[in-house]
Amino acid sequence: MKNTKKVDNRHRNPSEVTALDLKQAELSQQMASYFEKCIEKLGFVPNVLLAYAHAMPKLESFVSFYNELMLAPSGLSKLEREMIAVAVSAENRCWYCLVAHGAAVRQLSGRPELGEAIAFNYRVADITPRQRAMLDFAVKMCRASAEIGEPDRQTLRDHGLSDADIWDLAATASFYAMSNRMASATGMQPNPEYHGQARQKV
Amino acid sequence: MKNTKKVDNRHRNPSEVTALDLKQAELSQQMASYFEKCIEKLGFVPNVLLAYAHAMPKLESFVSFYNELMLAPSGLSKLEREMIAVAVSAENRCWYCLVAHGAAVRQLSGRPELGEAIAFNYRVADITPRQRAMLDFAVKMCRASAEIGEPDRQTLRDHGLSDADIWDLAATASFYAMSNRMASATGMQPNPEYHGQARQKV
Amino acid sequence: MKNTKKVDNRHRNPSEVTALDLKQAELSQQMASYFEKCIEKLGFVPNVLLAYAHAMPKLESFVSFYNELMLAPSGLSKLEREMIAVAVSAENRCWYCLVAHGAAVRQLSGRPELGEAIAFNYRVADITPRQRAMLDFAVKMCRASAEIGEPDRQTLRDHGLSDADIWDLAATASFYAMSNRMASATGMQPNPEYHGQARQKV
Amino acid sequence: MKNTKKVDNRHRNPSEVTALDLKQAELSQQMASYFEKCIEKLGFVPNVLLAYAHAMPKLESFVSFYNELMLAPSGLSKLEREMIAVAVSAENRCWYCLVAHGAAVRQLSGRPELGEAIAFNYRVADITPRQRAMLDFAVKMCRASAEIGEPDRQTLRDHGLSDADIWDLAATASFYAMSNRMASATGMQPNPEYHGQARQKV
Amino acid sequence: MKNTKKVDNRHRNPSEVTALDLKQAELSQQMASYFEKCIEKLGFVPNVLLAYAHAMPKLESFVSFYNELMLAPSGLSKLEREMIAVAVSAENRCWYCLVAHGAAVRQLSGRPELGEAIAFNYRVADITPRQRAMLDFAVKMCRASAEIGEPDRQTLRDHGLSDADIWDLAATASFYAMSNRMASATGMQPNPEYHGQARQKV
Amino acid sequence: MKNTKKVDNRHRNPSEVTALDLKQAELSQQMASYFEKCIEKLGFVPNVLLAYAHAMPKLESFVSFYNELMLAPSGLSKLEREMIAVAVSAENRCWYCLVAHGAAVRQLSGRPELGEAIAFNYRVADITPRQRAMLDFAVKMCRASAEIGEPDRQTLRDHGLSDADIWDLAATASFYAMSNRMASATGMQPNPEYHGQARQKV
Repeated sequence: MKNTKKVDNRHRNPSEVTALDLKQAELSQQMASYFEKCIEKLGFVPNVLLAYAHAMPKLESFVSFYNELMLAPSGLSKLEREMIAVAVSAENRCWYCLVAHGAAVRQLSGRPELGEAIAFNYRVADITPRQRAMLDFAVKMCRASAEIGEPDRQTLRDHGLSDADIWDLAATASFYAMSNRMASATGMQPNPEYHGQARQKV
Repeated sequence: MKNTKKVDNRHRNPSEVTALDLKQAELSQQMASYFEKCIEKLGFVPNVLLAYAHAMPKLESFVSFYNELMLAPSGLSKLEREMIAVAVSAENRCWYCLVAHGAAVRQLSGRPELGEAIAFNYRVADITPRQRAMLDFAVKMCRASAEIGEPDRQTLRDHGLSDADIWDLAATASFYAMSNRMASATGMQPNPEYHGQARQKV
Repeated sequence: MKNTKKVDNRHRNPSEVTALDLKQAELSQQMASYFEKCIEKLGFVPNVLLAYAHAMPKLESFVSFYNELMLAPSGLSKLEREMIAVAVSAENRCWYCLVAHGAAVRQLSGRPELGEAIAFNYRVADITPRQRAMLDFAVKMCRASAEIGEPDRQTLRDHGLSDADIWDLAATASFYAMSNRMASATGMQPNPEYHGQARQKV
Repeated sequence: MKNTKKVDNRHRNPSEVTALDLKQAELSQQMASYFEKCIEKLGFVPNVLLAYAHAMPKLESFVSFYNELMLAPSGLSKLEREMIAVAVSAENRCWYCLVAHGAAVRQLSGRPELGEAIAFNYRVADITPRQRAMLDFAVKMCRASAEIGEPDRQTLRDHGLSDADIWDLAATASFYAMSNRMASATGMQPNPEYHGQARQKV
Repeated sequence: MKNTKKVDNRHRNPSEVTALDLKQAELSQQMASYFEKCIEKLGFVPNVLLAYAHAMPKLESFVSFYNELMLAPSGLSKLEREMIAVAVSAENRCWYCLVAHGAAVRQLSGRPELGEAIAFNYRVADITPRQRAMLDFAVKMCRASAEIGEPDRQTLRDHGLSDADIWDLAATASFYAMSNRMASATGMQPNPEYHGQARQKV
Repeated sequence: MKNTKKVDNRHRNPSEVTALDLKQAELSQQMASYFEKCIEKLGFVPNVLLAYAHAMPKLESFVSFYNELMLAPSGLSKLEREMIAVAVSAENRCWYCLVAHGAAVRQLSGRPELGEAIAFNYRVADITPRQRAMLDFAVKMCRASAEIGEPDRQTLRDHGLSDADIWDLAATASFYAMSNRMASATGMQPNPEYHGQARQKV
């Protein structure tokens, strides 16, 4: 898997747990081709993938789970799922995810200030009431998941979400509850390319 | 997939989001045989699996991710991984996971009071200092993941954990940060069989 | 007072503050006969009583206060008062009280899962709306007693509680705010007999 | 029991739960003489006693418990026990107890600013390191009793507290965890006489 | 600037940051005359001014800002602005500001218990619903300013506040968010004269 | 003052409190020329100034206070003072200040990722240990100013800060405790020009 040699690792802190030696990783065929696709499309392999690359089955589970939640058909648009990712990551102050998914919100929306607004305080963002309700639910899941009950789900239904939409919302917010903690606990550094992406209004 | 008809759903609240109709689920061959194995081994299909069963790829990702983290070889024993699951679920007060994984701790340890201690307040549990350090790290991941840094990881190394062990610890704690929230957000009910399991000292 | 010799102290940590030497305690006649009654009825003297036994007047005050609140006639049933004890102890994560009073809820209700539900997250418990309102009030007393006011009490009245019932609810929740802290601050260990009690559905 | 007619109830809010009609109370002989002693000594019956006076056994338990903890011989001086009462009540923002016990600290110490310092932020108070350690422990008991362990108790021993002193400290702090919540939950109003007491340096 | 020699510095802790040597301060003419006016009117120079006196432009900015907010014409009375100062300082447990502005509330209102009520728990204070709404807003600004939005401002308008009044309320609460932290971070000690002031009902 | 007509107000929400009509403002000569200087230098008048412009003395106090703290000579560099502004604003999730001062950090440092790191989680930022200690102190001032004491100040001295530096650090952090709350309470919108500024590595 020579392509990963192109990955810019200069900004990764070698003393971090995540620096499990990629050279030792023997990428499965499936993952090798997935990494190549990343490089084609993004110009780099997101560091989160490298962080899982020491154990192929874990990497594969993570990738398939991620793709299912963020890219599969859903009543929530891809932008909305990225907005959830950012609002949750803001609540958890996750450096890696705020940089990577903040860029995604800017890119998908074409509105650079929207990515900043959700990363800084989603309550000020210029979004629809339905989206606001979704983010309120996601943030309550961060802060006090044990206090969520039917009234919270009913509020979402009142904004037009189906039960399947609520499931997708819950699964997305939960996924970043996981990813944020994994990134912070292992000291993941976001790829530096993200910072400048999609900063100008489209 | 007729076996799931045997699943005791009496105690599940039909108004909950999780009650996405299992009848509509068309289990993949792989998942059908996994469910059958559950019934053989446990006597029932854990409700968390039913909660994912409306979408086969999501269920498959979840199952493979779960099995990788909780059952694959690791420097952390299976009991230790269950202890992490319970300590995290206690922090998040997750009804489903405390019942299901509390039972697992009782079963794997043969010490019913250990399952209760970790579910109620892991700081009182009669565990090794290394295990205490692991649970302290897991709970810090719950409460203030953004504040975790090298000193926290160094404390774990001082207790003999390798960087790979730390990765597994972080991944396990993160997984329950996700599962707890998914369970609470969708109103999952634990299978009633868990309550009485492994209550007598072995 | 020879009967206390039968008390199983094996599981008590001798380095804990609570291990004030019972042998030095000279039980008053009243307390000696109370301890004997405990052994007859429960098979053991609850460790909380031993923790007060170094000072007879303190033990007597505690016992009479406890019995007044938990056993005297009240608009709240004994089970409801135990439910309050458990919900408060869960909020405070009190190992001793969760074990002892969780057993009491299981026993008085004949529903083992009810004891677990209230100990883990009372919001999921299958209880009446009136009981839910009582536990919500008790938990608000734990978290933010200074913010309680007439509207909170009115909510209870709307669920049918009289002012005397509210007084009893407040007194019970307050009592465990005290007992939880006393137990945690002094390192009380629950008697091991509690763990297995009333685990099977009646 | 005519003496209670002298009690100034003008400042009590008649809509509060605590206004359980004293006229209906039939004070036991013991309590009647205790109330008379209060009026002699303080000029009034503290409202907290009236709040318990609808049920003689509860009032008697409360009074005996209180007197045991606050007035019985102890390694902690009476002033120190009042300082604990105020520090705990400040943490819980208990109007009743801050007024009543703040006055006690001013009176017992002869230092009006000491009562204010502990009521506002005990960390600025001009007290001994041993007293500071006691108040730190008491406030940790308020905030995170489940996290207290041997290291916390050892810190107290390092400041010269015996295990019996620690027991008394824990019991006093716990008692106000209870009293604060009882006062706030039932809307107790402090007797107005306290406000002006002991305001001038002795 | 000889007048400042009269300032009672005995109670200031010389090890504190605030003890930047006043002798080195060369008071501007404007500030020298302001200090003289303080001594005439109050009998002393408030220590907060000394804490800024090492840098004349900072002192002048602070003084003019303070006077603009607290003394200039506004839809909020001077007493109401002092009540806001105390409620905010209570939330932040600021020793200096609670002592100084608590005295101001007692003085301006002629009600010693009002100063104590707002300093201890403003929710119990005998104030108008409009004032309660103002203090609720101020305290929300302390705790969760990022969550304030139009509904919070509308609540104030419903109590009769104009947008200019809301601006003044916000500016006053914000000012003490600053002053409280400055005082605590630098260890400011309140002038001892405040403690006894206005303690008797007018 | 015609220049302010050039100010881009399109992105300001007209229903917000801050929209106090600038047209009514009669800028003092000093402030008119200050606004002109802003337009020359930045291309716009920062919205925070407009928010104060309905009352000249308040605007003048704010401006002089701000300039004194952020621009006057100090042991802390201008970049360091902006870093403090951003770390505090992140703690308070202040939309306005994070956008405006995040841009300043990017600009003054020439490192776009530094602005993001401090805005998202300053603990991951690549800064000196002295700067880390400064930001830790500033964030403790946000969260628990009442708990700050000599040990916290000593830590700063151990990193080479003089008492005057500590004063400046405290004053800067305090200033944003104020500004963040003022911005959030009045719904200030940052000028849109900030978002794209200094996004490319110098």
